[in-house]
Amino acid sequence: MPAVRLEVLKEDTRTKARLGKLHTPHGVINTPVFMPVGTQATVKTMNPEELKEIGAGIILSNTYHLFLRPGQELIREAGGLHSFMHWDGAILTDSGGFQVFSLGDLRKITEEGVEFRSHLDGSRQFLSPEIATQVQMALGSDIVMAFDECTPYPATREYAKASMERTTRWLKRCKETLTTTDRQSLFGIVQGSMFEDLRKQSAAEITELDLPGYAIGGLSVGEPKELMYEVMDYTVPLLPKDRPRYLMGVGSPDALIEGVMRGIDMFDCVLPTRIARNGTAMTRYGKLVVRNAAVAHDFMPIDPTCDCYACRNYSRAYIRHLLKADEILGLRLMSIHNLRFLQTLMKEIREAIAEDRLPEYRQKFFTDYGYLD
Amino acid sequence: MPAVRLEVLKEDTRTKARLGKLHTPHGVINTPVFMPVGTQATVKTMNPEELKEIGAGIILSNTYHLFLRPGQELIREAGGLHSFMHWDGAILTDSGGFQVFSLGDLRKITEEGVEFRSHLDGSRQFLSPEIATQVQMALGSDIVMAFDECTPYPATREYAKASMERTTRWLKRCKETLTTTDRQSLFGIVQGSMFEDLRKQSAAEITELDLPGYAIGGLSVGEPKELMYEVMDYTVPLLPKDRPRYLMGVGSPDALIEGVMRGIDMFDCVLPTRIARNGTAMTRYGKLVVRNAAVAHDFMPIDPTCDCYACRNYSRAYIRHLLKADEILGLRLMSIHNLRFLQTLMKEIREAIAEDRLPEYRQKFFTDYGYLD
Repeated sequence: MPAVRLEVLKEDTRTKARLGKLHTPHGVINTPVFMPVGTQATVKTMNPEELKEIGAGIILSNTYHLFLRPGQELIREAGGLHSFMHWDGAILTDSGGFQVFSLGDLRKITEEGVEFRSHLDGSRQFLSPEIATQVQMALGSDIVMAFDECTPYPATREYAKASMERTTRWLKRCKETLTTTDRQSLFGIVQGSMFEDLRKQSAAEITELDLPGYAIGGLSVGEPKELMYEVMDYTVPLLPKDRPRYLMGVGSPDALIEGVMRGIDMFDCVLPTRIARNGTAMTRYGKLVVRNAAVAHDFMPIDPTCDCYACRNYSRAYIRHLLKADEILGLRLMSIHNLRFLQTLMKEIREAIAEDRLPEYRQKFFTDYGYLD
Repeated sequence: MPAVRLEVLKEDTRTKARLGKLHTPHGVINTPVFMPVGTQATVKTMNPEELKEIGAGIILSNTYHLFLRPGQELIREAGGLHSFMHWDGAILTDSGGFQVFSLGDLRKITEEGVEFRSHLDGSRQFLSPEIATQVQMALGSDIVMAFDECTPYPATREYAKASMERTTRWLKRCKETLTTTDRQSLFGIVQGSMFEDLRKQSAAEITELDLPGYAIGGLSVGEPKELMYEVMDYTVPLLPKDRPRYLMGVGSPDALIEGVMRGIDMFDCVLPTRIARNGTAMTRYGKLVVRNAAVAHDFMPIDPTCDCYACRNYSRAYIRHLLKADEILGLRLMSIHNLRFLQTLMKEIREAIAEDRLPEYRQKFFTDYGYLD
């Protein structure tokens, strides 16, 4: 039995949504789930107790960043990433692929791997399927992501096919490298850009490897949302029903609901914490720019329906003051709120699936609340 | 009875130290006490629950900063500073005098008050004893500091005398302005630079006003520590025994001990939080530069004898990583540690007074631990 597995509790009848429990060596997580991102071994501004309080059971961390600083050997010495960062929940690490491919002119791709220059000091570095997997073994994450290329959008069919086929070849090398399957599970990544036949080919080839989980990559990379939903419509059914399905890089409330409706179990995105630090709060009624003068004398909480620490104890006026004065507590309160907002959203989605009213919940979310991304 | 008063529980026999309880409208605080500084209505990086956890019962906030941003009227609308910042402990506000006098060419002093340019937007502003007191009335702090001039060091006798005498005249105007004495107490400030006769004159004139508390200003402004101790030696005995004595701007461990020995009850300083954010930890064994490469692979807590949240849960190596990676959690952990270190120091000092062993504690602190500032 793999270290990480999905127990499907219920399949929705009117949508492809599923309710489940993701069993990991560091706890059981209710799905569908949104995973906060802790790029550099910390979810920006927050401590692990605060993550627990907002309801997070699994977070994501970035191999590229940890590989460069502080380096996986230091984290291995510390007893792994959980111990290093004082987080006893589950951790998913990406492979570094997304970041090194994003480096543009600073990287060179061969069949062996990717040579690149560190964004920190310009030093020459190399990542391959083997190295990316070994780094994640040193980190000791529960879920290890395959070293892939997140095909940019738009891409020609030819580029997308070559990129996808290399991703599949690299996946096999990742699988061969990972020897710690008793405590770490490898997820493969479906690529193929916006081409249905390539997605089919990719899904067929990677599901053949019988992996503990599968991700859909190459979405939320600048394409219209309708196109993303269309790709999900035909891609998700290609994945085995008894394995977790992870949509990479998605975190806007509307896309989370649409993703769940199409059968996705796991999501991650830097969006909630990034816009938080820019002073934008996610609320049930849409985005609220807390930096705006409009809230200067507004003593309401960010979102009166929210139960987070920030909304329980602080006014918009105070948080605006903190943000204007560059005070760190402002960034903390905004981050707590946005992450709690998404945790609450996912909880409501799970309850709606359990009670056979997901389409109605979606309708209410978009119409009654009038949420606009 | 004044809103704020000191109950002296014990006077040390071999030193001038006293053990007491400072009664305020927002709780009773054990003295001698160190007050963390929350310049802009927040102790940098921390939330009020964390302040409570490290043992803080009273904090300081800055009238100059709050006057300029967000403005005292907004804070009055919020129900006062306690409510605005979600802090139900005691608050001491300074008068803004120190900051406006520090503006150099940007300010002009008359008998009426100080005209100055805002450091934020260059706008023309004015503070006087009346306005500084009215601002503090809007803030609703428990302890209101008089609007004084912190005489710079070195100063000529002539300048120091004129400055001190103006401070005394201004103090009377502050006292006449403060009408909320049922819930706010005014502290006067002894000035006189490093001149014994001027300190005597100042103390005699201000204690005549029978105020709820007295501060010693104009120390820790660049003079040698020995000179500061000498001034305290002859100034503290000039203050009434039944009123709290506050040494402004002192926060280094050695000066806290020396101040207590000379009869000081209250201290404040930005030092612990400022050096924390620069990566320097205060420990029983001296300063530890957590940013240094020397601790890169050091999995010990910052201070193994410390019980703070940072020392209970994180290694030097992890905190160093956070600091190098510009992660806010690093600044949080360092700030928590340094403030907890000073709270623990003050607690040990109080216990030493209670048990008649303050000189021995001082000896142990400087010799056994080898603390060096």
